[in-house]
Amino acid sequence: MNPVKNEIEMKTKAAKAASKKLAYLATDIKNKALFSIADELIANEKDILAANRVDYSEGEKAGMGAAMLDRLLLTSDRVRAISSDVRVVAALPDPVGETFEMRTLPNGLQAGKRRVPLGVIGAIYESRPNVTVDISVLCLKSGNAVILRGGKEAIHSNLALAEVVQNAAYRAGVPEGAVQFIESTDHSLVGEMLKMRGLIDLIIPRGGAELIGYIAQNAAMPVVTGGIGVCHTYVDRNADLDKAVAIAYNAKVQRPTVCNALDTLLVHADAAQSYLPRIATEWGKAGVEVHCDQRALAIIRDLPSIKIVAADAQDWGKEFLALVAAIKVVDSLDEAVEHIDRYGSGHSEAIVTEDYTAAMRFLNEVDAACVYANASTRFTDGGQFGLGAEVGISTQKLHARGPLGLKELTTYKWIVLGNGQVRP
Amino acid sequence: MNPVKNEIEMKTKAAKAASKKLAYLATDIKNKALFSIADELIANEKDILAANRVDYSEGEKAGMGAAMLDRLLLTSDRVRAISSDVRVVAALPDPVGETFEMRTLPNGLQAGKRRVPLGVIGAIYESRPNVTVDISVLCLKSGNAVILRGGKEAIHSNLALAEVVQNAAYRAGVPEGAVQFIESTDHSLVGEMLKMRGLIDLIIPRGGAELIGYIAQNAAMPVVTGGIGVCHTYVDRNADLDKAVAIAYNAKVQRPTVCNALDTLLVHADAAQSYLPRIATEWGKAGVEVHCDQRALAIIRDLPSIKIVAADAQDWGKEFLALVAAIKVVDSLDEAVEHIDRYGSGHSEAIVTEDYTAAMRFLNEVDAACVYANASTRFTDGGQFGLGAEVGISTQKLHARGPLGLKELTTYKWIVLGNGQVRP
Repeated sequence: MNPVKNEIEMKTKAAKAASKKLAYLATDIKNKALFSIADELIANEKDILAANRVDYSEGEKAGMGAAMLDRLLLTSDRVRAISSDVRVVAALPDPVGETFEMRTLPNGLQAGKRRVPLGVIGAIYESRPNVTVDISVLCLKSGNAVILRGGKEAIHSNLALAEVVQNAAYRAGVPEGAVQFIESTDHSLVGEMLKMRGLIDLIIPRGGAELIGYIAQNAAMPVVTGGIGVCHTYVDRNADLDKAVAIAYNAKVQRPTVCNALDTLLVHADAAQSYLPRIATEWGKAGVEVHCDQRALAIIRDLPSIKIVAADAQDWGKEFLALVAAIKVVDSLDEAVEHIDRYGSGHSEAIVTEDYTAAMRFLNEVDAACVYANASTRFTDGGQFGLGAEVGISTQKLHARGPLGLKELTTYKWIVLGNGQVRP
Repeated sequence: MNPVKNEIEMKTKAAKAASKKLAYLATDIKNKALFSIADELIANEKDILAANRVDYSEGEKAGMGAAMLDRLLLTSDRVRAISSDVRVVAALPDPVGETFEMRTLPNGLQAGKRRVPLGVIGAIYESRPNVTVDISVLCLKSGNAVILRGGKEAIHSNLALAEVVQNAAYRAGVPEGAVQFIESTDHSLVGEMLKMRGLIDLIIPRGGAELIGYIAQNAAMPVVTGGIGVCHTYVDRNADLDKAVAIAYNAKVQRPTVCNALDTLLVHADAAQSYLPRIATEWGKAGVEVHCDQRALAIIRDLPSIKIVAADAQDWGKEFLALVAAIKVVDSLDEAVEHIDRYGSGHSEAIVTEDYTAAMRFLNEVDAACVYANASTRFTDGGQFGLGAEVGISTQKLHARGPLGLKELTTYKWIVLGNGQVRP
């Protein structure tokens, strides 16, 4: 048998077997496991950093860029931060077992839903080794077994972290096999993993658009996709311009490389004359470059201290992931909503307005995972929304939308309690 | 352009456009539309029955079996029943717009989830023309546009029903285009429909295992699959045998052709000697044939008045959809759970027991859409569970499990209300 296929198949079957016990493991054992993982990460810091140094120097040798190297790097502080995040998850309520929508039917049957784990989660991710720990502990806390497939570039770090997680979890009473780490970095392996319908219940890809697209196209089992954010902020005719400057500035500048950062600024024609020079001046100070439609260009063309170019068709609907923003002047809320409908990716969209009806209409009519009135789209994040942690951000509609926390790693089953009822 | 592709593409785009307005249409307009559909079905009964007679006589000519012909047949009573079901859906609460899990964050942001329609639902179904109306009104009530693709054998009936639905709905204020019926019965059309990712948000197949399998394999968009039920009833050592006889009898006999009917009876060895002759006698009176493992065979082999054969490997995990049941004697609850885990389809599973711990263990450990203690699996149904109506029964884990009611045709979006907040 193909040894790659053999590894993935054996590990997946072991994960499935463990998931059956993990599904109803007591919360206190799961929490004990998480606290033990947090402790052991600190206790094994030396080995973890040594393994990371191997990846880092191989990355350097291979000519990896500074940003990639930084994402790969573990330090004592970073290990402590990962450990601390594990404690946060341990402190969150256990989503499993909650029974809800229970009703007593006319015949005396009690029927309701009980929250249960999905089963086995496959995580396919790139680069940042902390994902190994983050996803493991979110899966364990939500009662799911997990199969980890990290990138080749972080293999030594991931392996060291996974061993710490496994040893600590199993010693605490988590069923052996619940955390599987795929050691082979053979590329054909992802393809094998994506065929394991029935053994892997959900695939979560974390990485670039190419990885996510490949997985969404090829997985035989459900995939929760997301992470691609073409985000708009619409400044309405009745916007409070101070708020509009602060919000668009924050949405673009505070962390431009992430999915919830602003890509296109839409400005109502009535506000454009007074607003655009203000935001462009602020953005200019932060080094933002703007790609303007003709009307925006006419207003701010001569502004010093900001790089301004004419927008072309590719700028609408583009996720810049950099200090670049497109700007378009629109004549109405309708035009803004239509633009977002056409070019948005269903991630995070905001209106800035003091007009109650405009705000309500925007919240109703824009179809996205997260719609905002008068706030920065940068808040789209499990931690910011009070979920404690997230495994990703979904831009699909089925199952879960927006930040994916513990609850989104569960499903439910109907529980029916009878005393001999039969159907007439 | 291929005219088939052209029809489906134009209709899908029209549905998508309508869905954007339908998403926030007022509940009273949707209800008015449903009541109007109910009235118009009665008013147009003559035309509907005439169209149905065309399908029926073509079915007869084509040599269609009696069961198929009966499923195809509309009568005055059946049209009235369809109309009455529409009124039931009209009376259900509107799932759209409910805002839940709203929390105020430390920075004053209010963030929560609002229930919204999925968008455009594609329904691909066979045979029974009532599905045209049922799915249309469930989609309308939940704010979704719908694309209906019924079977060739019911094309005239479906077309007549769809026209009544469309006319009544649009007159009541539903956006034109919200209900699309595909008139071409060209087979290549389903394939075209399954490619329309981005335009169709969810496909719901209703029909046989072959249709469902084809759609699940080939759809580029999400599919909610289900309807295949390999259902077990496990009679524990401590079962109340009167209840166990009534429950297994009902689960097998009350309507054997449906997905929630009993397929395999598992009996604890300690109960088998007294229980098996009783249930076999009752089943025998109803014409049930049993396929027994060796231990069951040894107990009831000489029972008169029931057809008994030795089970072969194919009997475990088989959905009989007929008056046939497999019987197996097991030595423990563990063995029963393992058997169900191996052979069940994740639909409906029951235990009959007076032992509290055994019941709790079964409910916890059996992984299925619906798990029962001391009741017939025949209750797995949206109407029976108090959902009012259902578009089908999901045996998948993501998004929704078990009967799919109005709520399961929705998703949510995060609504974030700010007053200028930016992320520090």
